[in-house]
Amino acid sequence: MAKRFIEVLKGKRLAPPPWWLMRQAGRYLPEYRELRNRAKNFLDFCYRPELAVEASLQPVRRFGMDAAILFSDILVIPDALGQRLEFREGEGPVLEPIASDRDFARLKPENLHRRLAPVYEAVRRLAGGIPAEVALIGFAGAPWTVAVYMVEGQGGGARTKIRDWFRRRPADGETLLALLADATIEHLSRQIASGAEAVQLFDSWAGGLDDDEFRRFVIAPTRRIVARLKERHPGVPVIGFPREAGARYPEFARETGVDAVGLDGAIVPSWAVREIGACAALQGNLDNRVLVAGGERLAGEARRVLEGFRARPHVFNLGHGVLPETPPEHVALLAQIIRAWKD
Amino acid sequence: MAKRFIEVLKGKRLAPPPWWLMRQAGRYLPEYRELRNRAKNFLDFCYRPELAVEASLQPVRRFGMDAAILFSDILVIPDALGQRLEFREGEGPVLEPIASDRDFARLKPENLHRRLAPVYEAVRRLAGGIPAEVALIGFAGAPWTVAVYMVEGQGGGARTKIRDWFRRRPADGETLLALLADATIEHLSRQIASGAEAVQLFDSWAGGLDDDEFRRFVIAPTRRIVARLKERHPGVPVIGFPREAGARYPEFARETGVDAVGLDGAIVPSWAVREIGACAALQGNLDNRVLVAGGERLAGEARRVLEGFRARPHVFNLGHGVLPETPPEHVALLAQIIRAWKD
Repeated sequence: MAKRFIEVLKGKRLAPPPWWLMRQAGRYLPEYRELRNRAKNFLDFCYRPELAVEASLQPVRRFGMDAAILFSDILVIPDALGQRLEFREGEGPVLEPIASDRDFARLKPENLHRRLAPVYEAVRRLAGGIPAEVALIGFAGAPWTVAVYMVEGQGGGARTKIRDWFRRRPADGETLLALLADATIEHLSRQIASGAEAVQLFDSWAGGLDDDEFRRFVIAPTRRIVARLKERHPGVPVIGFPREAGARYPEFARETGVDAVGLDGAIVPSWAVREIGACAALQGNLDNRVLVAGGERLAGEARRVLEGFRARPHVFNLGHGVLPETPPEHVALLAQIIRAWKD
Repeated sequence: MAKRFIEVLKGKRLAPPPWWLMRQAGRYLPEYRELRNRAKNFLDFCYRPELAVEASLQPVRRFGMDAAILFSDILVIPDALGQRLEFREGEGPVLEPIASDRDFARLKPENLHRRLAPVYEAVRRLAGGIPAEVALIGFAGAPWTVAVYMVEGQGGGARTKIRDWFRRRPADGETLLALLADATIEHLSRQIASGAEAVQLFDSWAGGLDDDEFRRFVIAPTRRIVARLKERHPGVPVIGFPREAGARYPEFARETGVDAVGLDGAIVPSWAVREIGACAALQGNLDNRVLVAGGERLAGEARRVLEGFRARPHVFNLGHGVLPETPPEHVALLAQIIRAWKD
């Protein structure tokens, strides 16, 4: 039996739509926090298959999503390349930024698969243990977003260091993006070989670029990754999530060859249906703060999202990850609303 | 100044739309027939740069199309690979079909660029001699269509030999398509390096395949070619023309990453606008027999096409090549109608 989530990614319209939530495995769940306490630190959590498997399955067990996403982090790639990296409680990731040719030369792509072996082991166990109707999603950060962390030392902010660096030394910038694209291809390809049925590329820092930068840093590496994955694994869908791409979403969908695009909360569903819907399946885009609010507001907004995307293949999701302060019972309410939806 | 044809391929809507016609350089023009008589045979015509350049420019000089397409043939690739090939007057191309491993082993991809050097010379001269506002289109046959000619020995027909062969010996089929995809990448890449500003892939025999065959024989090789060309030549648009793809056109547009799709005469414009228009620019699709008919019928149908595609980026063209019996004055009338069109 085809899984509903995969069917939609391949272009079928289903009502109600399949659903999952970004960061569905996370701190809003008490059983996650309990699990988290068993790991020394966040990277240890990611690299212990028994913990990663359990974290991936917790939300599916509670709420019955149509897909489980591997519990991992986009920064396992810089970590596996040898960059020093720490997750500080309440602060997010902090990396020793790449600043010189020497830092650059120290990156070791050849260690990737060895360091990431526990991730593939988690995927293998998940593929064996997941309910039959639930799909398994693998993922990675897109090269640009990972490069931002590697050069800035952290996410967010104005990204002035990396944009300066790419302007002053464009060849080095391209080399870094190409190295990351190749590492991402290998990482996702290994996840697929281990049992992932679809993969998502998170490009969290795709906003705030100019046209030319968006093409070179976001579209070009994504296109390369999609093309290589499709050669190696025909039929395995790829979801692109260029967060805050705004008016550039249609170009992203047209030019990269992704099967689906993740839409952030700023995107109006009817516009996406018209401008992207023929090009790719649409995933999104309930405001994550509405899920914190709950009640009538959640019910109304969730129906607006369901209604807005009904004309095209749609995977219900948030526009951004589940916030830690989200009451789990609001997710249960959302599950009810989605399941009760009729076209 | 950006050329109108290229602007539309990059996603801009223009009224009136830019236009050119498939086989605009051809037997319907007396000056073409005169030129043709100066060549020993059709391949000699293709391989003599001064003749190919003149044939490419003739229609543009007469009718002022927005693009000139290189005068050449999709079968220069099998010819350059060493397959015996003859163009018989009134009969079309006849090839010594590939039937055995020995035939297969005799194909010599390493000779490609040497044999095709006159084609690139023609592109170089055209790029230098074309009017400033006219774009230059390079082209090649898509791997599946070229494979049909190579295995069947001719075009058209039920393609039973090749489908049997691909079913009995799938690995050989894939190898042939991969060899042709690589040759096509090299051939188009060299045309672009020589001055072609956009390229079109003709997949004339894309019809009549089942879903799985369409994906493996049409979509997969096209995706590979598009991805490689876009890596080597960012910003150079690729047009795909999977003739008779019917209901599979949207999947083709979504999955291959082409910038524009050529639509055959069977496609209803409003459907294409809705199902493909957000994904790729649309090119087509006036019935070539209407161009033979001329008069009110031509005027009415041409306006129906202009009107039908107005909502999306559109390049006016036929749904199939200009027929030899087309009166040149009908093409002049069409030019007038297109130029007078207001949105």
